[in-house]
Amino acid sequence: MNNSSKLSTRSTAKILSGTHNERTAHTVTDSPYIVRTIDELQKRVRKALKKTQQELNAQATEESPAGQSSLGFVPTMGALHDGHATLIRRAREQNEVVLVSVFVNPLQFGPNEDFDRYPRQLENDVALATEAGADIVFAPAVEEMYPAGAPLITVSSGKLGTMFEGKTRPGHFDGALTVVNKFFNILTAVRGKHSIYAYFGQKDAQQLSLVQRMVHDFNHSVIIKPVSIVREDNGLALSSRNQYLSSEERENALVLSRTLALLREKEITGRISESDLDMAREKINSTPGIRLDYLEVVDPMTFETPTENSQQVLALVAAYVGETRLIDNMELH
Amino acid sequence: MNNSSKLSTRSTAKILSGTHNERTAHTVTDSPYIVRTIDELQKRVRKALKKTQQELNAQATEESPAGQSSLGFVPTMGALHDGHATLIRRAREQNEVVLVSVFVNPLQFGPNEDFDRYPRQLENDVALATEAGADIVFAPAVEEMYPAGAPLITVSSGKLGTMFEGKTRPGHFDGALTVVNKFFNILTAVRGKHSIYAYFGQKDAQQLSLVQRMVHDFNHSVIIKPVSIVREDNGLALSSRNQYLSSEERENALVLSRTLALLREKEITGRISESDLDMAREKINSTPGIRLDYLEVVDPMTFETPTENSQQVLALVAAYVGETRLIDNMELH
Repeated sequence: MNNSSKLSTRSTAKILSGTHNERTAHTVTDSPYIVRTIDELQKRVRKALKKTQQELNAQATEESPAGQSSLGFVPTMGALHDGHATLIRRAREQNEVVLVSVFVNPLQFGPNEDFDRYPRQLENDVALATEAGADIVFAPAVEEMYPAGAPLITVSSGKLGTMFEGKTRPGHFDGALTVVNKFFNILTAVRGKHSIYAYFGQKDAQQLSLVQRMVHDFNHSVIIKPVSIVREDNGLALSSRNQYLSSEERENALVLSRTLALLREKEITGRISESDLDMAREKINSTPGIRLDYLEVVDPMTFETPTENSQQVLALVAAYVGETRLIDNMELH
Repeated sequence: MNNSSKLSTRSTAKILSGTHNERTAHTVTDSPYIVRTIDELQKRVRKALKKTQQELNAQATEESPAGQSSLGFVPTMGALHDGHATLIRRAREQNEVVLVSVFVNPLQFGPNEDFDRYPRQLENDVALATEAGADIVFAPAVEEMYPAGAPLITVSSGKLGTMFEGKTRPGHFDGALTVVNKFFNILTAVRGKHSIYAYFGQKDAQQLSLVQRMVHDFNHSVIIKPVSIVREDNGLALSSRNQYLSSEERENALVLSRTLALLREKEITGRISESDLDMAREKINSTPGIRLDYLEVVDPMTFETPTENSQQVLALVAAYVGETRLIDNMELH
């Protein structure tokens, strides 16, 4: 049995219990921005692209002919923060129609992970998303995305999906790619001649890399736009999971971004040695309340040790801060 | 490691050796029907749909307004026979544009299977396909479909993909769905408002079922059209692998369809018992040169034992006739 099958059994139970959907469905005031069904989403996207195209055509002159209206898509699991707002604003700048999805995807949570505890706050999410420029917020129930329970056919993330985050979270990337693949197909079905740009944060570096590989391997007609990590002034990478941190844990968590920054400085003056990495690991592990999962330097194309041919070198870190697992990364060159 | 990873290693070697592509690339006279690249395919499909739409519009009257021009797609591994011709003719009847793909997909062959030996006869295939009504024949090299070697991200066929044919041929359905998913996305990218109908034979019952589940689970905007098995007058189900059979083996192989037909007769007069199945198995196994793999009665929706709620009941058989593995199936009710 592979991981996705294991997950499926668990997820089916979750899906069929339906507790989360009821919660989200009843606590949120109806907003004209919120769309709940795939069918309605497709109608809205089609209509919005058509309308904005007409506007472009109307504004066109002989010197500046109309371009194609495009869709900017920002997939999220909700609990939106300034990091997401950056993605949405970027999408707003670059497209005529902006769609944000808010869907806590059960398939990408492991049995002992925080699916139940994961923050759900659709009302706030809609406010933040529309403030940042979203035209449509797609917030489907689990049953809308998986009407027959856990899907039988899924996306397999291969070897890259079993490394780093995939090692600690078996099945996580299969689940994430499975839902992203569905979103891409749902939107591609109605794109006509319009382009779709999908925005992913570089904070989830491995997810970004996997999505880019999926677009390539699956011949998706969606263009991926990576967006840099957004940090607090003190360096902490924004994350929905930061909500779980006490103020003391928040302070302790700063060692992650600081250690990455130190490695970047080291890289400027020369190669990072294995002993540099070990010292960096020790620095993190000796911080109170922090347990390091991994700190590694990789080529983001392969997530293997960088070679002389590597175009980019990325330092990756994952650690438990109290009970909360945080990840961060920094480009070294 | 899952099956697709195992296959990948092997396929990469195959793909990089490039022996098969060279063979097909040089032995076939250039035909205006043949398209070799994804890019050219997309241009041709787009153009053909546009042209046929204009024709529909031109013929339209007030009483009979123009419908949408549509694409009929018949994916094949080549070695086309009358069974394929039936699929292509059906696509011709129902669509304005007909595309046949001819691609021997290395991912769906196991290490000890007949990838090298699988018949390649593109010249004949193009003749048969165009005779039956194809407008375009897409015959890509392996490198065109898998430019970076074996794909990292693949389709996982789940539990249904490990049963029956999947049990004997580990990784087969993952490979088949991976390439069908690619074809669907390549075509969906250029369909605009036009529909795509994809034709699959019921002979590969499990593949048909898996493709239908994939379309559902992946939200593909492609409509699947199942087409009944085509048989010789003596009952032998048409298959590209029949080419491998000696005339004696061909005769022996008839026991497969005859046994299925006997089960269907039994089903009409009452339920088939386990001892009926055992007798049928014995009948096949006692035929000279035949080694039964499985003979089972299933619900084609799940490939599990039929229940009182089963809408359909299918008898499935797989057997080695000499060294050639054949499959067949018959709907019992």
